[in-house]
Amino acid sequence: MAGAQNIYDRSDFFEAYARLRRSIEGLAGMPEWPTLEALLPPLAGARVVDLGCGYGWFSAHAADSGAASVLALDVSERMLERARELNARATVTYRRADLETEAFPAEAFDLAFSALTLHYVADLPRLLNEIARALIPGGVLVASLEHPILTAPRHPGWSEAPHGGKVWPVDGYFHEGRREIEWLAKGVVKHHRTLESLLTGLAEAGLGLERLVEFRPSLELLAERPELAVELERPMFLLIRARTTPVEGRQG
Amino acid sequence: MAGAQNIYDRSDFFEAYARLRRSIEGLAGMPEWPTLEALLPPLAGARVVDLGCGYGWFSAHAADSGAASVLALDVSERMLERARELNARATVTYRRADLETEAFPAEAFDLAFSALTLHYVADLPRLLNEIARALIPGGVLVASLEHPILTAPRHPGWSEAPHGGKVWPVDGYFHEGRREIEWLAKGVVKHHRTLESLLTGLAEAGLGLERLVEFRPSLELLAERPELAVELERPMFLLIRARTTPVEGRQG
Repeated sequence: MAGAQNIYDRSDFFEAYARLRRSIEGLAGMPEWPTLEALLPPLAGARVVDLGCGYGWFSAHAADSGAASVLALDVSERMLERARELNARATVTYRRADLETEAFPAEAFDLAFSALTLHYVADLPRLLNEIARALIPGGVLVASLEHPILTAPRHPGWSEAPHGGKVWPVDGYFHEGRREIEWLAKGVVKHHRTLESLLTGLAEAGLGLERLVEFRPSLELLAERPELAVELERPMFLLIRARTTPVEGRQG
Repeated sequence: MAGAQNIYDRSDFFEAYARLRRSIEGLAGMPEWPTLEALLPPLAGARVVDLGCGYGWFSAHAADSGAASVLALDVSERMLERARELNARATVTYRRADLETEAFPAEAFDLAFSALTLHYVADLPRLLNEIARALIPGGVLVASLEHPILTAPRHPGWSEAPHGGKVWPVDGYFHEGRREIEWLAKGVVKHHRTLESLLTGLAEAGLGLERLVEFRPSLELLAERPELAVELERPMFLLIRARTTPVEGRQG
């Protein structure tokens, strides 16, 4: 049973990750956060599971917003250690878990949240089934993940266009599976899936897609961080909201 | 009231179009046809509208499959003339219509079908609303259209990758709107929309997405037509099936 790659416990990666704006500033340093937040159901009173919690910024936010409980999972002990230092809360439990193999209790959560983690998971259909099982009927999954256009290329990177400007060369789109790329460090492993596979995986798990957003930087954000303008040239992240079948459609 | 571009009535385009495999061989010359066909509801007894019927291959197929009636619309008189020559059927009516402005009768059709036409329509939200109005409650839209990754680039075309093979350079993804490109002739006008905009347009029209397929050539097809292998590198067409809200959710 092969577990997830745990690049976050490798020192070169961990140290580079620690210098990212999203690591230092938390949710305020995540350009996609306002868009993702708009997809969330009310957090007050909710039982939340945070899949790939990292430094715990979202888990702490959920706790501060009145969530009844937050189970915050990550594969990296170093990330969990930072999370406990930075974002300890009475209602948040930080715990190590490998999303490739973790089994969740049934109907235990109102909300499953996952920020930029699902593209690290090799067996996404298995995880989506687990999520659907772990949610109450009518429970919600809100997730951000790298867009298939970002994960597809065998050698990802911007190129100069012959007509000027930057282009994002795509290949490998229908060759799904493992991608070993360089991001902060060499040897980072992601898993490319087509958009169709993601939507099929959700549907087959009984998670009805309610919203699909392709994150684009707002004009306000571009005024503040002009280096993000290139992100208008190709989609970077998918943000989704899906809901389990309401009680009349389910057993149990 | 600006109508649709009617490139199909321009002789240089029309003559090049006439030489395409899909023009000569009909449905059998469309690599995506089996995948599209699998999305169709039963045609027997159905009242069908074919939006952008071209040479009428689908309309004739629907008639031959027992459709009660087929209203086959196209903006090009020359295409309609060819359709009447090649694919005349007693139950098919070929008629000129501009999908930018056409108003349909309400609840008159069980199936709206559209093959590779929607990316020529500037005001897609308007057309989707018209389609939803024209379908009976529970009626179905089945459509193929160019994938946003195909329509996005300002200067579309394959490039040689530095690591070998072909790449499809993407830019302009979030710059939606008009694209003037060269395909069979110069000055062909398409309209690029993001995937999110398409899905939002469907949802806002009351068309619930049931299936989304990214067309990929099958192994059998690749054995027969090896030149299509490059289509595994980036998605070419989106195929969708959507359904209007069933009767309890609607007025009238």
